[in-house]
Amino acid sequence: MAAPSGKSTIRTQRNPNFSKLSAGYLFPIVGRKRKEYAEKHPDAKVISCGVGDTTHPLPAVVAKAMADYSAGLGTQSGYSGYDPVIVDPVKKGLIDNFYSGMGVTPDEVFVSDGSKCDLARFQTLWSEKARVAIPDPAYPAYVDDTVISGHTGLFNKEKMGYEGITYLPCSEDNGFFPDLTKAKDVDIIYFCNPNNPTGACATKTQLTELVNMCIEKSILLVYDAAYAYYIRDEDKPKTIFEIPGARKIAIETNSFSKLAGFTGVRLGWTVVPSEIQYECGAKLRDDYNRVFNTHFNGAANVALAGGLATLQNMGEVKKVIEFYQENTRLIMETLKELGFKTIIGGRNSPYIFVKFPGKGSWEVFDEILEKTQVIVTPGVGFGPSGEGFVRISSYGTRGNIEEACRRFKKAKLGA
Amino acid sequence: MAAPSGKSTIRTQRNPNFSKLSAGYLFPIVGRKRKEYAEKHPDAKVISCGVGDTTHPLPAVVAKAMADYSAGLGTQSGYSGYDPVIVDPVKKGLIDNFYSGMGVTPDEVFVSDGSKCDLARFQTLWSEKARVAIPDPAYPAYVDDTVISGHTGLFNKEKMGYEGITYLPCSEDNGFFPDLTKAKDVDIIYFCNPNNPTGACATKTQLTELVNMCIEKSILLVYDAAYAYYIRDEDKPKTIFEIPGARKIAIETNSFSKLAGFTGVRLGWTVVPSEIQYECGAKLRDDYNRVFNTHFNGAANVALAGGLATLQNMGEVKKVIEFYQENTRLIMETLKELGFKTIIGGRNSPYIFVKFPGKGSWEVFDEILEKTQVIVTPGVGFGPSGEGFVRISSYGTRGNIEEACRRFKKAKLGA
Repeated sequence: MAAPSGKSTIRTQRNPNFSKLSAGYLFPIVGRKRKEYAEKHPDAKVISCGVGDTTHPLPAVVAKAMADYSAGLGTQSGYSGYDPVIVDPVKKGLIDNFYSGMGVTPDEVFVSDGSKCDLARFQTLWSEKARVAIPDPAYPAYVDDTVISGHTGLFNKEKMGYEGITYLPCSEDNGFFPDLTKAKDVDIIYFCNPNNPTGACATKTQLTELVNMCIEKSILLVYDAAYAYYIRDEDKPKTIFEIPGARKIAIETNSFSKLAGFTGVRLGWTVVPSEIQYECGAKLRDDYNRVFNTHFNGAANVALAGGLATLQNMGEVKKVIEFYQENTRLIMETLKELGFKTIIGGRNSPYIFVKFPGKGSWEVFDEILEKTQVIVTPGVGFGPSGEGFVRISSYGTRGNIEEACRRFKKAKLGA
Repeated sequence: MAAPSGKSTIRTQRNPNFSKLSAGYLFPIVGRKRKEYAEKHPDAKVISCGVGDTTHPLPAVVAKAMADYSAGLGTQSGYSGYDPVIVDPVKKGLIDNFYSGMGVTPDEVFVSDGSKCDLARFQTLWSEKARVAIPDPAYPAYVDDTVISGHTGLFNKEKMGYEGITYLPCSEDNGFFPDLTKAKDVDIIYFCNPNNPTGACATKTQLTELVNMCIEKSILLVYDAAYAYYIRDEDKPKTIFEIPGARKIAIETNSFSKLAGFTGVRLGWTVVPSEIQYECGAKLRDDYNRVFNTHFNGAANVALAGGLATLQNMGEVKKVIEFYQENTRLIMETLKELGFKTIIGGRNSPYIFVKFPGKGSWEVFDEILEKTQVIVTPGVGFGPSGEGFVRISSYGTRGNIEEACRRFKKAKLGA
């Protein structure tokens, strides 16, 4: 043990993977840029179509259920501590609403404080040796989690990616569904469907191809269905468990965040089928159960009350989704009017991924902010294949989305 | 890569540390034993003095604040998504109430869904190489977290502990404050004060000795203050930051769970001083900030509303603590009356740690359950030095605690 230098106060060994992280987490950077702009232009009315953050109030029936539950916590009969009994009806509601007839049992459903948190807990399950494939572009937490838990080498600036991660480029060339042959030698594949940020949504045939390859090669599929409820094409699967055999190799995480506006309320879930087994015979589900009990103490009881009301009133929830879908339509219409040629997503997703030919994503981000005072998200922040695109989020009040569209037109965006 | 056997469905490499975990997490085992007993004796009225789970309703003012906030989520003006603004007044309230004049700044305070979850997130910070010391007995998550994140060898049945962990025995011989000389060569020391399960509470002199040793040896101190608000001895510190120099080497986690009955509501916090630096000059606080943003999405907004009301009404909160303190007094009185000689805790803790000479902890657990239908927690479940003790929790309704005491007397416990 070397003597500590004058600088250090602890000799504790830092997780060496932190030094590999090349930049801050995407959204805080966008937030900082927004703040800097606002400080320079105190009178500007900045509109955010950046972070996918819900803005519509909760349905009255959901807010009321949470208020009633909260008031109950002030009474002896309504009080609940650890492991509130309300978690069981929530599990039942999830199975009835989303996994009916797919063989999912309550002991395979883990109700949590959100998918981002579940994705982090997954990291504990597998060894550093596991080789990971991640679609490009994708939700940045997949890459950052994978780096922090030691599956990668350094960031390669030329490749714009980490050594050791197998990136699966999604581009115009492959219709934004990746070439899976690149992932044959990995141990874990992440897949987000509908994709964040592109909004592209896989067909049943494509997902069957994915599941079959994972079964054939014994690859674990980490499937993120956080935007499944935005799928409008009726023939497209809303869960990986619609695909035969998926229970052997797939875990699925999902969330109330975008389904029901719970980004601040915090509620999500993960399904871990009991069929999934490691070489040694241990069940992934049992390990996850252990992690879930050791690293976590369950979702907030009030959030569970809101979740139960959501599951019992899906008609009300659908109205909010339809509200955002109308926002999406307004933005798509504007972009088409402005002459953009490559507009992905929108139909089965709250996100629109739009290409600005010949420009870099951050350049476009700055330009849109300067010209229209609208925040978007740079596509390259989600992976190298996102370069040249920006993601426009349809989460916003109708007034703000309409105003953003007016400003886009006035600025002749893309011209 | 070996071809998968017929048994496995994935070739993904399991985290090898899971196979080291010797038994289930303590409290689920206690829960299973309780369930089995209830099934065998369907008419028995089982009382739990086992898991430290709060039972008293939230103060009316706290429940109302949560109900109002929940109702507001159903309105445009009251709705909040990611990063609710209410987190800032909560940070300010925490600093004003608990760290006044100690130099703690808001960017050093991380408001979370609880200490157990924070302890898990800490694991990401340090390398596998870090050598860990843990008091014995202690809250089981310290050991389980340390095993899962790869700091140990196998469980040694003879030593009743994991190879690679430096256990710091707390016993009658050392007044339940461990011999710190054993920890001179480690990189991290966990310390829970007041201790769970013993209820022993360190003096200012003892904590100064702890901090000074950590500074001298550049050891990171992970200080768990979850029961600090139960301290009645006015000269005993309620936070490690009362000790000069602690900011150089200590992080402190705490929770609203036992402070304000938030076991089911889920709210906690951790203070990570900006002074703490690794050898390479990186700040632990900055790494934790990155983990906190990448692995987590903040505490539930409704829980934050409850937390703020708690911090603004500490007088009401204190009444609930006093309610449990009266429970503790009733149990202590009963145990003294029954002639127990070694009764630890109680005065500065909601837990009483009592020795049954000549008997094993699980044997005593079974005996108490059979004779009195009361659930306690076996001391040995918290570490080998807990053998022979059980922990009695004073969380319960007055009626249940009084009934438990009556049954203890009727059964002539310990005779």
